[in-house]
Amino acid sequence: MKTVKIAIMGFGNIGVGTYQGLETNHDAIAEKTGIDLRVKRILEIDVDRPRPVNPDKSVYTQNVADIFGDPEIAVVVELLGGLEPATTFMIDAMKAGKHVVTANKAAIAANYEKLMDAAKENHVLFRFEASVGGGIPVLTAIQNALLANRFEEVLGILNGTTNFILTQMTEGGRPYAEVLKEAQEKGFAEADPTADVEGYDVANKLSILISLCFGKRVKVEDIPTVGITGVTAAEIEDAKKNGEVIKLIASAHLKDGAVECSVGPQRVPLSHPLAGVSNEFNALYLKGNIVGETMFYGKGAGPLPTGSAILGDVIDIARHIEGLR
Amino acid sequence: MKTVKIAIMGFGNIGVGTYQGLETNHDAIAEKTGIDLRVKRILEIDVDRPRPVNPDKSVYTQNVADIFGDPEIAVVVELLGGLEPATTFMIDAMKAGKHVVTANKAAIAANYEKLMDAAKENHVLFRFEASVGGGIPVLTAIQNALLANRFEEVLGILNGTTNFILTQMTEGGRPYAEVLKEAQEKGFAEADPTADVEGYDVANKLSILISLCFGKRVKVEDIPTVGITGVTAAEIEDAKKNGEVIKLIASAHLKDGAVECSVGPQRVPLSHPLAGVSNEFNALYLKGNIVGETMFYGKGAGPLPTGSAILGDVIDIARHIEGLR
Repeated sequence: MKTVKIAIMGFGNIGVGTYQGLETNHDAIAEKTGIDLRVKRILEIDVDRPRPVNPDKSVYTQNVADIFGDPEIAVVVELLGGLEPATTFMIDAMKAGKHVVTANKAAIAANYEKLMDAAKENHVLFRFEASVGGGIPVLTAIQNALLANRFEEVLGILNGTTNFILTQMTEGGRPYAEVLKEAQEKGFAEADPTADVEGYDVANKLSILISLCFGKRVKVEDIPTVGITGVTAAEIEDAKKNGEVIKLIASAHLKDGAVECSVGPQRVPLSHPLAGVSNEFNALYLKGNIVGETMFYGKGAGPLPTGSAILGDVIDIARHIEGLR
Repeated sequence: MKTVKIAIMGFGNIGVGTYQGLETNHDAIAEKTGIDLRVKRILEIDVDRPRPVNPDKSVYTQNVADIFGDPEIAVVVELLGGLEPATTFMIDAMKAGKHVVTANKAAIAANYEKLMDAAKENHVLFRFEASVGGGIPVLTAIQNALLANRFEEVLGILNGTTNFILTQMTEGGRPYAEVLKEAQEKGFAEADPTADVEGYDVANKLSILISLCFGKRVKVEDIPTVGITGVTAAEIEDAKKNGEVIKLIASAHLKDGAVECSVGPQRVPLSHPLAGVSNEFNALYLKGNIVGETMFYGKGAGPLPTGSAILGDVIDIARHIEGLR
């Protein structure tokens, strides 16, 4: 059994989900991989907030030097969110020889080259499966099992909040404002839902997918993005009559070597695999020139599903370190 | 650019699809990975059969020693099918220090321990993504991105022929025999459809999934298996009235530490993600204790989709060899 020690930066919902996932499945992971995975440090100011897990108080630190300067820590999991200090911390971790795992779609979409270059220069691995599609292993598939393909089409339902709202509007024939209010009361939408309902969250994810599928960079601000705030019950009804359903779709393909892409409400025929993706579920539909149509479906958010993807990345790195693959 | 040379054993439909996929995307693969992937040898007796690809005649051999004895060949792709000589050839290739990729579900299901042990003893990699779900990257996901999970449920539609027949029976209200005949005429079902329609093909795939998801071996002959030959139009109609659709389902879960599994026609509620998987498409629905529900969808057969999975495995091995990950 080989021990691999990690640090988590930021102990909010996703950090807690990751910790909880490891606590629950530590032994199963050890049995499958021969690796004893341990959280040695957690960077967090708010130590006393009630959480469903209780790491020993000595694990917490408010000083990144305790993480970057600790030669025992092999992998740093960045879950602070936002562009800064997250990006600087990730690059500093790489400079200190740490492999980095993150779920931070905004930081990757904004600083893709910078982060990839830093990983390369410092000979460390950089993984971010959790940044797109939560627990659904899409990025790993694109970069590995489906790598032999040229990708022809990327279509995604990549935001659970908006898919929940659109599903409820479709099934209940209710107006946007009413459903949003209910979603907020139930905790499915944030008090300030802007990033979700205006499509910005999805645009970040699409920018990352474009980098991986097409090897081209399209910045978030260059992706034509429309949210769901203008979708009316009448439009949904009209789509229904045509055998279609309105979904917030992230779309990208190559045309004459250039990326055409957008985020916005689209009418999806009921016969399309994405049409059946309801409520908080996400899915990514990919067309490859060899494999044809594929679709990946699951929970695109939430502490445990996202934690599943983060732990998958951490374990993959741990196996590389230990030469166990 | 690093060159990695491979050999293909068996140049039927899947071998040709793999070769064709590589021919089409050789440069894209090289650009993405830095690897120049080459087919150095093809083991095949029938050299003159018309095929959509035309390897140089000097590539063909009828002698496995030309492959196992060639130090330039790093990866052997076994596509002979059947238990023997395929199993012996795979083990001999491993003994000769070759990494092995196969699509041979029957050989893996029958000789799982033997093949895994041989790979371990000879310090080579053994990959078989194409053996379950064709081009859909399910095995890679189970062993990597989803590895942090304990799997709670495995439900699959894993045979395109039977799913096509059941879909046509459901949509057209037609009897089994009539649809089978049409499927045979269109090339969707083989002249002797036994392995497909009796569920044996699916049972092989389920045996492999059980090994990977639960770390337990259930031999094909120990999986209760019922095919679709007894499914009547009346049963399908009755299911429809209850908001259900009849699918040939491979099912496995743990109960008190033991595997409960079966292959057979099941009624699937229309609200279940598997209900919308129609015609020749396949899908695997997995429930993990962290990630929750996931589903992987795509073409479960066919030369190119299967070739996509084989090439994914080959590239993964090539990157390991060259230390490029």
